[in-house]
Amino acid sequence: MKIKPTYALLIIDMINDLEFSSGVQLLPHALDAAEKITVLKKEVKALDIPVIYVNDNYGKWQSDFRYLVDHCLQEEVRGKPLANMLQPDESDYFILKPKYSGFYATPLELLLEHLNINTLILTGVTGDMCVQFTANDAYMRNFGLMIPSDCVASHTHHINQQSLHTMKEVVKADISPSSLLLEKLKKNT
Amino acid sequence: MKIKPTYALLIIDMINDLEFSSGVQLLPHALDAAEKITVLKKEVKALDIPVIYVNDNYGKWQSDFRYLVDHCLQEEVRGKPLANMLQPDESDYFILKPKYSGFYATPLELLLEHLNINTLILTGVTGDMCVQFTANDAYMRNFGLMIPSDCVASHTHHINQQSLHTMKEVVKADISPSSLLLEKLKKNT
Amino acid sequence: MKIKPTYALLIIDMINDLEFSSGVQLLPHALDAAEKITVLKKEVKALDIPVIYVNDNYGKWQSDFRYLVDHCLQEEVRGKPLANMLQPDESDYFILKPKYSGFYATPLELLLEHLNINTLILTGVTGDMCVQFTANDAYMRNFGLMIPSDCVASHTHHINQQSLHTMKEVVKADISPSSLLLEKLKKNT
Amino acid sequence: MKIKPTYALLIIDMINDLEFSSGVQLLPHALDAAEKITVLKKEVKALDIPVIYVNDNYGKWQSDFRYLVDHCLQEEVRGKPLANMLQPDESDYFILKPKYSGFYATPLELLLEHLNINTLILTGVTGDMCVQFTANDAYMRNFGLMIPSDCVASHTHHINQQSLHTMKEVVKADISPSSLLLEKLKKNT
Repeated sequence: MKIKPTYALLIIDMINDLEFSSGVQLLPHALDAAEKITVLKKEVKALDIPVIYVNDNYGKWQSDFRYLVDHCLQEEVRGKPLANMLQPDESDYFILKPKYSGFYATPLELLLEHLNINTLILTGVTGDMCVQFTANDAYMRNFGLMIPSDCVASHTHHINQQSLHTMKEVVKADISPSSLLLEKLKKNT
Repeated sequence: MKIKPTYALLIIDMINDLEFSSGVQLLPHALDAAEKITVLKKEVKALDIPVIYVNDNYGKWQSDFRYLVDHCLQEEVRGKPLANMLQPDESDYFILKPKYSGFYATPLELLLEHLNINTLILTGVTGDMCVQFTANDAYMRNFGLMIPSDCVASHTHHINQQSLHTMKEVVKADISPSSLLLEKLKKNT
Repeated sequence: MKIKPTYALLIIDMINDLEFSSGVQLLPHALDAAEKITVLKKEVKALDIPVIYVNDNYGKWQSDFRYLVDHCLQEEVRGKPLANMLQPDESDYFILKPKYSGFYATPLELLLEHLNINTLILTGVTGDMCVQFTANDAYMRNFGLMIPSDCVASHTHHINQQSLHTMKEVVKADISPSSLLLEKLKKNT
Repeated sequence: MKIKPTYALLIIDMINDLEFSSGVQLLPHALDAAEKITVLKKEVKALDIPVIYVNDNYGKWQSDFRYLVDHCLQEEVRGKPLANMLQPDESDYFILKPKYSGFYATPLELLLEHLNINTLILTGVTGDMCVQFTANDAYMRNFGLMIPSDCVASHTHHINQQSLHTMKEVVKADISPSSLLLEKLKKNT
């Protein structure tokens, strides 16, 4: 018996002021990914696929996700254009994570169970850190993985490509670019 | 070597609209506890003990803690007087929990590690459910426990007393009332 | 849609040398429970219900479960008659737990998922500690619970009755005695 | 204040019959690593560093670690020479893991806490899977990492080198070969 895939789109660490030293380097790559994620988000919502912001709390244990969004939108921070493009809707979900993996010490697994999801579409930054740590934990929990190559960014193109390659090999992710992934989703949902 | 106790005050499920059938029954007990917790909170903050709201998300996965506070303060809900008394300060921490225990599928353990806490002061509702589930999980993680008897409420006085008795016996909690507990804290901090 | 219950029998901490001060007090209660569990185990195995020994590692991190069994069978320890009655078969599963709950820091949840179980039959010692901690964790993970009253033991009859009452009320356990439970199982499997 | 490092040697998945299709390919690499781990193990034990076998249960939920050892030693399996070289001593610890990471659904974290360890020496197979998944989880839990390059093996030399490089970059592992690592340990313990 083949189980019908049920999807969620995860947007990892894109609500991000990028106010750290290597943020300058990451910004252009993150902007490219943000554009693609913006389109992908709109399209998957039309297919009734839930969107979950999985975001670092940046050690601000007294802050909400909405506060992080406001901080990135209203202050002159490096990551402002990312937050502008990727403003969460009221219907979007969010998980604040204290460490790299979206699953570690968070309710993400319970939320996915609650939404009856078995396949994750991972997007965001950075490919070699939070995306990969989240992908590994998802794989151990038997989730199928789609990681559209143009929706993930890292500090260099080389590191990003290497991470994508690793995730294809190790956690069997489908790394087709978002346009191709959307075609597949439209067939399957 | 005796390890010096380091404390955090946990306020469990007191940001609560009580808009469920047994909420009428719970309200008077919760109000009594809220008064005591309000005093305790003020006093422990003077001792630089951090305060952590550990609160149910009530299945509202798209909501922040601040939203829950606003909902309880601004709408005519049964639990409004609780939220009024126990409004969180900007310096307070919060953890949204999806289930009964504050430790299950949340970052509570990491937050306590980050704050370097080894002893928890548990308060809130209800004694036999979320307080006890949290107490059990704290005990397995080697936290010392103080559960001031007048700062915990349940649907009946009898159930509350029984829960306190169980927590004294099983997880070795100090269930002295809050006035006595404060004396001990003032000696130890 | 009602989901068909699928059962596993958990035998908690019955492979136990009882070589601790209160072991004398626990022994007669544990023996009574062991007799009932022995019968229950035989009957549920005939119904193809898997049996899982969920057992403390007693701080012996270098030992296997089989070693614990041998220790209890071959040395003149207080808990020898328990191990004699409840010798594990080759087809039985086991989980060594480092703390009170069978779910904490163990693969129990994955094993139950692997076996496709949604309802647990909890038995063993002690009602107020490891059985109750395991019951709470099972309840948070949405397992149905059957805790046959004559298959659980504690240091006193009173504490045992209180624990059973609490588990009936708090985690909605069916605490019918084993004979009645077997009738229900035979109808449902 | 600098915290003094306290070490444990983890030997990952080396008790392994290699009776899977790619086992032929892995064997020579695993043998090379096994020789180096054998020497390293002997030397660290002389320094009173605990040794922990972190081993897959291979889906055999009814088996002990000792059973796995016997299976690899006494049957004519491909991985027999590995088990021969790396036979566990009575004083060694072991953790059976159901998935790739040694931390997922196991008591490993509690054992390390019990032993008061803050720095892990990771060895074994395969570099890109179980070693890397374990390294990631260790990093999120703030363990320091030493992953001696000649004590880790993968299906190809290229994949192994890439994994080591990734672990050096992402989880800040010291990947000096075992001879150099031993010099450092001797200075620090």
